[in-house]
Amino acid sequence: MHKQTIQTSTNKYDVIIGEGLLTNIAEYFPKRYTNILIITDSAVRSLYAETIQTGLKSHCDNIGIATVPAGEASKSIDYYYQLLTEAVDHHLDRKSLIIALGGGMIGDLAGFVAATYMRGIDFIQVPTTILAHDSSVGGKVAINHPKGKNLIGNFYPPVAVIYDVKTLTSLPAKEIRSGYAEIVKHGFISRKAFLDQIMKTNLRNTLDPYDLVDQLQKGIAVKARIVEQDEKENDIRKFLNFGHTLGHAIEAELGYGNITHGEAVAIGMLFAIRVSEQIFQVELPYDSLLQWLKENNYPLTISSLNIEHVIDRMKLDKKSENAIVQMVLLEKIGQPKIVNLEDQVLKKHLEIFIRELG
Amino acid sequence: MHKQTIQTSTNKYDVIIGEGLLTNIAEYFPKRYTNILIITDSAVRSLYAETIQTGLKSHCDNIGIATVPAGEASKSIDYYYQLLTEAVDHHLDRKSLIIALGGGMIGDLAGFVAATYMRGIDFIQVPTTILAHDSSVGGKVAINHPKGKNLIGNFYPPVAVIYDVKTLTSLPAKEIRSGYAEIVKHGFISRKAFLDQIMKTNLRNTLDPYDLVDQLQKGIAVKARIVEQDEKENDIRKFLNFGHTLGHAIEAELGYGNITHGEAVAIGMLFAIRVSEQIFQVELPYDSLLQWLKENNYPLTISSLNIEHVIDRMKLDKKSENAIVQMVLLEKIGQPKIVNLEDQVLKKHLEIFIRELG
Repeated sequence: MHKQTIQTSTNKYDVIIGEGLLTNIAEYFPKRYTNILIITDSAVRSLYAETIQTGLKSHCDNIGIATVPAGEASKSIDYYYQLLTEAVDHHLDRKSLIIALGGGMIGDLAGFVAATYMRGIDFIQVPTTILAHDSSVGGKVAINHPKGKNLIGNFYPPVAVIYDVKTLTSLPAKEIRSGYAEIVKHGFISRKAFLDQIMKTNLRNTLDPYDLVDQLQKGIAVKARIVEQDEKENDIRKFLNFGHTLGHAIEAELGYGNITHGEAVAIGMLFAIRVSEQIFQVELPYDSLLQWLKENNYPLTISSLNIEHVIDRMKLDKKSENAIVQMVLLEKIGQPKIVNLEDQVLKKHLEIFIRELG
Repeated sequence: MHKQTIQTSTNKYDVIIGEGLLTNIAEYFPKRYTNILIITDSAVRSLYAETIQTGLKSHCDNIGIATVPAGEASKSIDYYYQLLTEAVDHHLDRKSLIIALGGGMIGDLAGFVAATYMRGIDFIQVPTTILAHDSSVGGKVAINHPKGKNLIGNFYPPVAVIYDVKTLTSLPAKEIRSGYAEIVKHGFISRKAFLDQIMKTNLRNTLDPYDLVDQLQKGIAVKARIVEQDEKENDIRKFLNFGHTLGHAIEAELGYGNITHGEAVAIGMLFAIRVSEQIFQVELPYDSLLQWLKENNYPLTISSLNIEHVIDRMKLDKKSENAIVQMVLLEKIGQPKIVNLEDQVLKKHLEIFIRELG
């Protein structure tokens, strides 16, 4: 078991990572709660909700479970309101707890319910995907609006993150790839030794729990150090966007569901590395990343993309200002830098990149 | 013009009170904004929205107005979501401003929109009622749920409160009574000299702007000192509930719209004073408050109330714990104290009080 403390501007909380934490989850609670609502999705519920409920029985009398359908579509105003009503019906009061059991979607949705129910009650993140190592730290909670992802939300940190790697080793291959892309990102923007360690990991074999705990906690530490310095994303928090400017555009162009978030970010990182090499005249491990992605079956075929559409999407990115595309590039590993790119320059880089990737 | 600074746990902001501030409102902004959305209600819009919009033209190119129907029913999830959509359509970004122009309902609703749009953008309160002197300070924003008033919300302070008393002198008499009851409350829980000053004010005459600025700023100072010490209502913020335990119950029993919030609180204060006198064996100005309320046409007829129903309502109050009624009483003027009351004791006090009031 590994524990690290995240310090935010308003409070601090522990991220606990280990094997088999779910069976006795209350052990890791920061305090006692008499009334708990577990919010989860239809896919995760059958796997873990009852385990947690049973384990909590000695801690607490009143444990409810509220379920929404699996998938990003549940991050809507309607499900948000439905969950608030379930919180009322379950008699949650200001001293009660919400547990967000699931991936990033559940963390965002249940976190926003907790942030706004009676002006904010405690919530604990229990992530069940590798990708959620990223979203469960940093205090961002939100739902979607038809005109913008995560458009409605708060900065509202959990009181604890309890991360049981037992839930991760049986994930579908594409979910493992998706989550690992964010770990790779944390490697690139922090230090070479961590990146080298990840590049030795073979995602096609069953993941070793010891390695997984180690790499997750290192990834979380990278993110935590950044958000502790810049919680509200005025400055260096943008570094976490490495690979995401093109990544988000690919995700949207190919259609959510056709490529996972992390798989799209993986291609985005390749692109950011290529652009970095040319702009800063440095050598970066483009080839070794490409090889690792291929070995681990990341989808890399993007020749069907319409470059004009992709550039339009990149301009719409929330982090872009005044319709100029902003990318996170690398002067070297562990040294990210924000760079604005003119449309024509961007287009040329993209054309070469897509041709090269094939 | 009077200015006072409110310090919260996360930021600080100015409350500016004066005559004729609306015509050149941007003078009091803490910084420049390029995109502004004024949120107001159908009653206030025709009175002041265009004045503000015209005055802002030299400050800013892009000023929108979004309107909801007047009345508490607009503090709903549907209007909340509609306003978020209007914020998107008006292209508000993270650097934009929302102005909450109206009474407490608008402050709560527009404040919650600002608190959650893109995880929080700046908002400025422009109160147009006396009652809003109370709600515009303290950082509480919220909408209602059918099962509870203010059940969905945040703690999210404005970046400024700009209070133009010109909007107050022409209020309907019952709105003036409603607002003044909260000023009276601030007198009772702070100091005798302030209370004596209020008791000399005749609400049936046109209010003197100089006196009004003075009394509003004193009332705000009382509230500010309390919320600065206890923003999240763990402790002394409960003192602001003086008169509200019975007040809320009367408001709900008689039906919203039949008695204003402040009028109900006025009766609640009389009751709290009577109970205080008996429990602490002290003498308090029950008679002079009663006389002032009568002179100023406060409705005081509550003989139709069903005592059992009233007690049930008092138990449902958010501030009550474990179904024991909690009241704010006075050991003397300026010295409030939280007291738990058994049902039987409460019932006896209520019976005597209602009989005495007639």
